[in-house]
Order: sequence, then structure tokens, then C-alpha cells
Amino acid sequence: MHDFTYRGNLLYCEKVKVRDLAERYGTPLYIYSYHTLTGHFLKLRRAFSDIRPLICYSVKANSNLAILKALVEQGAGLDIVSGGELYRALKAGCPPERIVYASVGKTSSEIEEAIRRKILFFNVESLPELEHINRIAGKLKTRTKVAIRINPDVEARTHAFITTGKITNKFGIDLKTAHGILMLRGKFAHVDIAGLHIHIGSQITEGTPFAAAIRRVIVFIGVLRREGIALEYLNIGGGLGIVYSKETPQTADEFAGTVLPVLKKSGLKIIMEPGRFIVGSAGILAVKVLYVKKTPLKKFIITDGGMNDLIRPALYGAHHEILPLYVTHEHENMGTRKFDIVGPICESGDFFAKERPMPPVREGDFLAVMTAGAYGFSMSSNYNSRPRAAEVMVKGGRAYLIRSRETYPDLTAQEVIPEYV
Amino acid sequence: MHDFTYRGNLLYCEKVKVRDLAERYGTPLYIYSYHTLTGHFLKLRRAFSDIRPLICYSVKANSNLAILKALVEQGAGLDIVSGGELYRALKAGCPPERIVYASVGKTSSEIEEAIRRKILFFNVESLPELEHINRIAGKLKTRTKVAIRINPDVEARTHAFITTGKITNKFGIDLKTAHGILMLRGKFAHVDIAGLHIHIGSQITEGTPFAAAIRRVIVFIGVLRREGIALEYLNIGGGLGIVYSKETPQTADEFAGTVLPVLKKSGLKIIMEPGRFIVGSAGILAVKVLYVKKTPLKKFIITDGGMNDLIRPALYGAHHEILPLYVTHEHENMGTRKFDIVGPICESGDFFAKERPMPPVREGDFLAVMTAGAYGFSMSSNYNSRPRAAEVMVKGGRAYLIRSRETYPDLTAQEVIPEYV
Repeated sequence: MHDFTYRGNLLYCEKVKVRDLAERYGTPLYIYSYHTLTGHFLKLRRAFSDIRPLICYSVKANSNLAILKALVEQGAGLDIVSGGELYRALKAGCPPERIVYASVGKTSSEIEEAIRRKILFFNVESLPELEHINRIAGKLKTRTKVAIRINPDVEARTHAFITTGKITNKFGIDLKTAHGILMLRGKFAHVDIAGLHIHIGSQITEGTPFAAAIRRVIVFIGVLRREGIALEYLNIGGGLGIVYSKETPQTADEFAGTVLPVLKKSGLKIIMEPGRFIVGSAGILAVKVLYVKKTPLKKFIITDGGMNDLIRPALYGAHHEILPLYVTHEHENMGTRKFDIVGPICESGDFFAKERPMPPVREGDFLAVMTAGAYGFSMSSNYNSRPRAAEVMVKGGRAYLIRSRETYPDLTAQEVIPEYV
Repeated sequence: MHDFTYRGNLLYCEKVKVRDLAERYGTPLYIYSYHTLTGHFLKLRRAFSDIRPLICYSVKANSNLAILKALVEQGAGLDIVSGGELYRALKAGCPPERIVYASVGKTSSEIEEAIRRKILFFNVESLPELEHINRIAGKLKTRTKVAIRINPDVEARTHAFITTGKITNKFGIDLKTAHGILMLRGKFAHVDIAGLHIHIGSQITEGTPFAAAIRRVIVFIGVLRREGIALEYLNIGGGLGIVYSKETPQTADEFAGTVLPVLKKSGLKIIMEPGRFIVGSAGILAVKVLYVKKTPLKKFIITDGGMNDLIRPALYGAHHEILPLYVTHEHENMGTRKFDIVGPICESGDFFAKERPMPPVREGDFLAVMTAGAYGFSMSSNYNSRPRAAEVMVKGGRAYLIRSRETYPDLTAQEVIPEYV
């Protein structure tokens, strides 16, 4: 489901040799396929074409302006979670009426800016936040739309850090409290409660939790309707799982098959917020082998990419396939041996894979850490004073540098050395 | 052991009210005490004054130039792990002969730059790296000093991610292999193997593992001496634990009491590499309460600081004390209730503390996340497109802004929006 494939001995991204990019731009290097990226968006849109949802790409998965622009040009909206993401969304040319804003911790200045820019609506995560938005909209002498984020209390069966629809976590509002808020909606003169929002987690591979959450919220919407409360929007969030290893997640069509009938029947305008589903397999991290180190007990491939570039293995125990950019016949004949594939950072948590069977690898070889498009660069840091990687977008036979590599002076640009007295 | 204390109702950093800093510079805000920072360095130097070690502060713990400068002015050397840290060390005014360089993944250009700048020595982590350094020094027509990093195979009893002295991890060289390398030292014409290095992990609270590792390496040095191999340096690394919660780590004096006699007897020049011990309790992260959210099952304090600012709780399950900047009598009478203290990031892993007993807290209050000086800012990221925090150093009654808050344009400064064709 992506455009990183071997032709002959070499790994290609669309029509470009990945090794050429690694040599031209240096490593570690994030490389994205335009075709994979926009293809996932179009596949989802096609699967749901019956109801013409607003598909808001989740900016936090990968917020590079060139990625946002590519999707916005195809008609995507954007799902943002901060003032910084609003800044990015506008800079990438996204019309404000295609922007929805979620986050449990929106600040006053972030809310004010989003109201001024006339985004479509806020996903509201708590009663104090609703009161806060109402107050700020009042100060600005305007009205703003919100969707109440419902915590449907369903089990998403994913990593504990990325499950967000259980009643014990910080997200959303339980049905009873939401009902109470809706009954008192007249109290909020500057807020129009126009819809409901759910988002139950991330990297969910089965359809059942989605269907359960949507059913629960649709029943609730029916109850509200009978009480005279009409809503316009249902935001079903994101969380569609992808293939990192041997997962068999539902396809866009299968997902639509499960949820489309009930969404259609609701008569509501549907919003979706896919992130990983769109960008996950559209990106790889290319790294160079610095050393092959053998100890009495283990073998290590030490690369020039580290946990500062891609923290998912350390933080979530995530699996990423790791492929050589160049395969020789020697490889095919020699079989594999097991290596820990690690970075240069002074921490045992700095690894991409442990005990991974690999073909013979030599110093100077390049490797591709696959499926690194989502939560790769966006979570990267300068830990160990390492400049962050460059990023390249490939479209057909062309490569576009979409983020230049940081330099040492960039690392200290905000710092001031005082004369202590 | 630090200078963050309550006077009356207010938390002070040295002679400055922390709340005044939070209001003046905004939150999230890292605040450091100059006196705590330099005090820890001086305490360690005093405890080991008999042998006058070179104490190289471990830059990765907190690499702000103002922190490096404060320590270098007191006579500290610096322990670096990358070209970026070399850049910082020199920029902070550290004499090259007080710099040692460790890392399992030094690149050619990093090695070349460090040789040109004439650092004291490299800690060498593998035979391929030693060959590499020898080749580059040869190319530069010079000789450079190295210390072989020994992996002493001791159990440091700390978090798996920060234990580094077990034979199954990527660090260092086992004794047998090291012996082989030393026997062949004549082969390396451009490298002077001048010492040994050990570093068994981080946040180690007991003396036993240090003593065990040092004893093991001193016995090895004795064997080498009898074989005619004389060494000049022993680098005993860092890893001294500090108090985050109820730990009772050894003091500098206790540590010296355990290891000083054997170090003295060795007759070698001793290097130490403390990081957390020096800067850990010298820093706090001040955050503002955005919302107090109650769900049927739990209470949440949502702050404007998140896992992008301080990832230790999410990554290591680390404990940080969390204190209000302002304590009222009301607080004293009302007792505590349990809260999850979380950030605004759209991820359940975004928390500072779970089920933490707290005094009454209101929106707009400030909190201090304590003991955040080490591996706080240095691991921070722009996840969720959040500008990184500002940093302030307090010395006596003065505050110095040592890093200004990032702006939205800073977030996209390296990015390029292409015209896709």
C-alpha cells in the first residue's frame, strides 16, 4: 500500500532511487512519497463518497507544511491541536472553514486566535473549556461553533498511551455530563453546540471499537433529537490502524462498509480525522550504518539515526521494518543473522529494533526504517544536541527538499550566554 | 539539597519568587538555580580534592550554553557525545583539553572536528571505531588520545533504558576484547591508548555497583601494568543518583568514601562525568493550570506544560514532585485530593503524575514540576507544534533569560513549501 519498492537491487520511492537521495541530502533523512500520501486520502474519500465527509488530516501525525499543502490541494481539511498547528494550517493554505480544533488544553490566546480566524469548530473536551470559549467569543462579540467531544468509554485495544476513549483518561465528556451541558445550552450565548465528536484512540486495527463508539453516539443523538436538540455535525475522529509488521487492519472500503450505513442514516454532516492512515506508510527514515559492532553476546548495527529522530520504538515499543537500500546477490545467498539496530545516543533506549534478522550489512551501507511517516519527525528532538533530520518529498521522478537539515548554530539560536554578576 | 524553598506562602528560587518569573516570562518555563548547579559541582570537587580529578559535566543532561558556562567558569570540564555538543562546549568557552568525547556512533566528520580542536581524548566504544579514529588522525597527520570504554558487566539496578554497563547492551568493550586490542596497540600508529573508561548507567542510588565496576577495572589495569602496558587516565563515568521522591542516594562524600582509597592507590589521573547529579535538582519546570476537569471517575489538572516539554514520566515512568508556587492557609486546612496532572497533548502518555495527592488547585494557578533540570529541556521537542519553553537562570536576586521561548515562525524556519508539478 505504498510506493517504496525494490526494482532490481535498489529500493525506490516512486521513480527515484532512495540511495541517491541519501547520498544527495545526507542521513538521517525522512523521505515521503507524494503518491502514497495523497493516495490514502483519495482512497478514504472514495470509500465514503456517498456522504461526502469533510476529511480533516490530523496535523500532529506529520505537520510539515509541504505535506499539509499536498493534502489541502486535494481537498482535505485539517484537524489541529494547538496554536502552532493553526499557524501551520493557515500557512499551508488551508481554508479556515476546513479546520477543526481539538485539545484538552487550549489556552486563551489559542482560542482567541482560532475564533478570529473563523475555523469551522472546536472539539470541546470539558465544561470549563466550554465556559472559557463562551467567555472569549463574548469578549470578541461573536458566536463560535463547537462539537462536544464524547468519551464513549470503549476499549480500543491499542497501546495504553494512545487509547483515548476510556472513561478513565483525560479526553472528552461522558454521555450523562454531555447531556446536562446540552440541556443548559441556552446559558452559552456565544457558543453554538453544533455537533458531537468522538476519537477513541490511535492505530486501531479492528472495526468493532469504531462501530461500537459510533453506535453509542448515534443512539445519544437520537435521544437528543427527541428532546428537541438538533445537531448538524458528527465528527468520528481518526485512529485507523496501518501495517507496521503483520497487522491486518481494515481497509478504507471495509471501514466504510461497517460504518457508512449508520452514518448515512443519521443525516448529519460527517467529519473524519485520519492522520497515521494517510501519512504513516508514506514516509521512511533513511539512515547510514556507522559501525557494525560485535560483542561476545550480541551483534549491533549502529546507525547515524537515533531515538531523537524516531522515538516510537523507545516510547511505544513500536515495530518498524528495516530494509537495506541496496540488495546484492550475496545477500540472497548468505541468509540473515540477528542484530540490534541502534542509534548513536548514549542511552539503552536508543534502538530501532532488537534481535532483528538482517542480511549482511557493512559500514557505509544505508538502511530504510519503514512506515516512519507518522509520529516520526513530528516527535523528533535535539537530544544529544543532534540537529534534526532533513525531509524530502518525492513526486514521480522529482524530489523536493521540504525541510533543510538543522545546523549547529540552529541548536543555540534562542540561547543567550549571560555575564553572571 | 537545592535552592527552591518556600518562604511565607511563596516558592522561591534563591532570592527570587518563582511566581514572578512565571508571570514575567510566561509558562511553561524552565528555571534553574545557579547556586544549586555550581554547588553540586563544588561539593563533588571537595569530596575528591585528595586526587584532584577532572570533573567533566555531562552536557547531554542539560546543554544550555549558560549552564555550561557557569560550570566551566568554576573549573569543570565537559563530557560530550556529539559534534553538536562539541560546538556547544567550545561556544561556552570550555578549553579543549578539558573535553572528553563518548558515543557509540561518532561520525567521521565529528571525529575529525574533535581531533582538529585537540580535545583531551575520545572514549572509544568498539574496535571498528578505534580503527576509524586511527585512520582519520592519520589523514590529519597527527596522533590523538583515546580511552577504551570497558563494559564491566555489572548490574546497575536502574531503569532498563539507562543501564549501560551490562554485557548485553551496546556500550563499551568486554575485558577480553579490550585486552586483545591493548596487546595490538602498536598497530594503531595515530592513536595513543591513554586510559580506560567505564560508565555503568544513570540514576544509580547505591555505591555497590560503582565500587564493583571500579574494582574490576583496577584489577585489569594491574594486569596490564605487569604486562608492560602503562595507562595515564581512568575515567569512572557518571551515573550518581539523586532524590526525585524518596530515594536516599549516596552523597558526594559517601561516594568518595567508597571509591577514593582505591582510586588514589591506582596512581592514575581520574576523570568523572556527572550530569544529573549536578543539574537534576537545580532546575524546575513551572507550568500554569489551564483547566481542572472532573469526570465521573477521576479528576485532572490540565497544565500548559506537556510531554513535549518533559518526557521523563512518559518515557521512563519517572516520578517528579509537583508543588504549588503559592500555598494558602486554605490549602493547609483543606487537605489533599488525588489528581492526574496532565498536559494538553493529544495522547494518554502526556502526564506528569497520576493519582497524585494535591492541595486545592484552581485555573490560573502555577505549579512547579520539581527536579527537572536533567533530561528535561534537553529531551524536549516540538510535538503538537508546540514552541519549546523559555529557560531562566537565577543567581541570588537576579534572573537571566538564558533561552527565549520559541515562536511559531521558528517552528517552520527550515521548511520549504514546494510548487508541486
